[in-house]
Amino acid sequence: MNSKAPYLLTPGPLTTSLSVKQAMLKDWGSWDGEFNDMTAQICQRLLSVAGAEQTHVCVPVQGSGTFAVEAVLGTLIDPDSYTLVLMNGAYGQRVGEILEYLKRPYMVLDKGDYVPPRGFEVAQLLESNPKIEQVVLIHCETSSGILNPLEEIAAVCAQAGVRLILDSMSAFGAVPVNMADLPCAALISSANKCFEGVPGFGFALIERQWLEGAQGRCHSLSLDLYEQWRHMENSGKWRYTPPTHVIAAFLQALKEHQAEGGVQGRLARYTRNRDRLVAGMRALGFQTLLDDEWLSPIITTFLSPSSESFDFTQFYALIKQKGFVIYPGKLTVADSFRIGCIGQLFDEQIDAVLLAVSHACMQMGMTVPVPAPNLLSPQLKTA
Amino acid sequence: MNSKAPYLLTPGPLTTSLSVKQAMLKDWGSWDGEFNDMTAQICQRLLSVAGAEQTHVCVPVQGSGTFAVEAVLGTLIDPDSYTLVLMNGAYGQRVGEILEYLKRPYMVLDKGDYVPPRGFEVAQLLESNPKIEQVVLIHCETSSGILNPLEEIAAVCAQAGVRLILDSMSAFGAVPVNMADLPCAALISSANKCFEGVPGFGFALIERQWLEGAQGRCHSLSLDLYEQWRHMENSGKWRYTPPTHVIAAFLQALKEHQAEGGVQGRLARYTRNRDRLVAGMRALGFQTLLDDEWLSPIITTFLSPSSESFDFTQFYALIKQKGFVIYPGKLTVADSFRIGCIGQLFDEQIDAVLLAVSHACMQMGMTVPVPAPNLLSPQLKTA
Ligand SMILES: Cc1ncc(COP(=O)(O)O)c(C=O)c1O
Ligand SMILES: Cc1ncc(COP(=O)(O)O)c(C=O)c1O
Repeated sequence: MNSKAPYLLTPGPLTTSLSVKQAMLKDWGSWDGEFNDMTAQICQRLLSVAGAEQTHVCVPVQGSGTFAVEAVLGTLIDPDSYTLVLMNGAYGQRVGEILEYLKRPYMVLDKGDYVPPRGFEVAQLLESNPKIEQVVLIHCETSSGILNPLEEIAAVCAQAGVRLILDSMSAFGAVPVNMADLPCAALISSANKCFEGVPGFGFALIERQWLEGAQGRCHSLSLDLYEQWRHMENSGKWRYTPPTHVIAAFLQALKEHQAEGGVQGRLARYTRNRDRLVAGMRALGFQTLLDDEWLSPIITTFLSPSSESFDFTQFYALIKQKGFVIYPGKLTVADSFRIGCIGQLFDEQIDAVLLAVSHACMQMGMTVPVPAPNLLSPQLKTA
Repeated sequence: MNSKAPYLLTPGPLTTSLSVKQAMLKDWGSWDGEFNDMTAQICQRLLSVAGAEQTHVCVPVQGSGTFAVEAVLGTLIDPDSYTLVLMNGAYGQRVGEILEYLKRPYMVLDKGDYVPPRGFEVAQLLESNPKIEQVVLIHCETSSGILNPLEEIAAVCAQAGVRLILDSMSAFGAVPVNMADLPCAALISSANKCFEGVPGFGFALIERQWLEGAQGRCHSLSLDLYEQWRHMENSGKWRYTPPTHVIAAFLQALKEHQAEGGVQGRLARYTRNRDRLVAGMRALGFQTLLDDEWLSPIITTFLSPSSESFDFTQFYALIKQKGFVIYPGKLTVADSFRIGCIGQLFDEQIDAVLLAVSHACMQMGMTVPVPAPNLLSPQLKTA
């Protein structure tokens, strides 16, 4: 790790291991067999993490996570069918925005910024709107950090015979998903979230049967996942130039994910980070936006203190001086900021960021409660 | 350079310098000011390489080069207007394919595989089809390596009052383009070609006025360059997660491009590579697909020898054993293969690849002419 590089307490791009980055120190020919083997290994591993080898195929796509979401919606949704979008934040809204571009009919259940959609509500909507053929759910709505109740929603979708499309961008890899039990027709995620790769592509795990019937639907050549998949099946190659270095880094990241104990291992570390962070921030007088029940182990939203001395830009800069990048809020209503728990972060970094927060508050002239003992360092005592 | 990594004699991804790859050893927050400065610098430098600072804006977009081509066509072309596509190979055909997806009306001038479209032909077509509002030209048609006559075609477009869209994917950075003189409404290229960056994004230089009027046209949220540009203008940030490491590498690549003497310096080295390669291959009995007049300094297509002993798969493998990756053909008619001249390649690598080719021919049992003196090494003499 370059000693001058700050730690990223953000929802990705995040701090990756040095070995992941070092996997990018080689150039790969995108037509070459060795490179194609890497892609095949990645797809195989992703299917296996989701327990989806028997039922789903993995289709990677160049670009950011949003590209993968648009690719899934554009490739799979029958243009005449209705979609129900479960919104409770910016990423649910983005799904609506994409469907507007695609001119596909959809309905919305909008729960605002920090309340989850519940199974019974979805069941009611599906019952009174039999035209709905698919439901889109954001797994962890990263704009607030809320972990939406996937299992109960998947269950009602299955009961109604409706397909579930899951944007698990910021959750897959750290929040368990077992497609063998969970009825989920498509799961979308990307390289630079809980698998701790670097950004450059996304991917979808799609029910083979659904994809097989999706030829000719997509609005975009580049985002046509049916064609992308056929091409890969036939040739082992990406359809257009892949981000070769990013892919090499991702394979390394998947190996490190497995070495850490897979989803369970990562979930344990991120949960520990989150608990330590939330406890420490509360000790400093900060409040979380969400009730504990809905806090994800991915990222936590804190309400900006009401103190007039608090200024986010200054707060951000002071914390960055100490070597940590935090994240601005993305709520439509409440003034807030976010601190992520994912990436190469451990107790040491969480403690150091808490110290930096407490320091920053004092420097801005805020009254800070006496920090919990585990936050005290000689430096802080003399400050 | 990892000693086990082969040199890539391909049209990109290509062999990049170690320092370009090392620029990826740091993680960047995509919201952070330091990262946004890198993006701004990149756009500024690209405009300056094209002499387009006064007239055009630079809009980068995540994904491969094809994504950038689709983004330009989808964002800029008025859905009711006609487009003339000048085809002489796979990348011109791809433009047609994109327009099919977009359901935009277009006409084609198809010259087959190895003949360039000429100015007078374009002028005739524009005269007899006044509905045409834009012409798409592939600068270097990488499938054959032909360098199309940009200047004469730009001139007739300007005369007819028609906009020129230039896919300069594999040429920009090494083939001079001066937008101050050359009437070109949009130029498209990507990170991993003549600027010698790593793959992960493309970009377009677009006439400011044209882009300003393009709100609401694009078929895709992710590929909407109008929204991408507005967002960057307003916030300095990419609209969706950028491939941060790839971008850091590209800024380093642009600095090295400048240090080599910019477009002129790179053109000189690539031309020297091409001349050395073609002379050496001809000395070994190979023929180029194209007449010398149309050979680009980017990549050269060689016809597969008629000898029954020649087998491309074996040829490829034997040459790869010596540390060089060459490229298969992409022609619709002739059996051929390609060898690239771009990337971190110098006399030493060109000579070594010629040696590897001559070796491979002998190992396959072909009769190879006595190689030119500069190809002879002690190893070859005893082989
Ligand atoms: C839940 C969710 N969906 C979609 C996205 C969009 O991904 P990207 O920014 O890579 O386009 C994100 C990014 O954070 C996300 O968290
Ligand atoms: C002229 C031209 N256009 C378009 C492309 C497509 O770029 P990509 O493979 O990055 O999608 C290429 C790639 O080699 C090209 O050479």
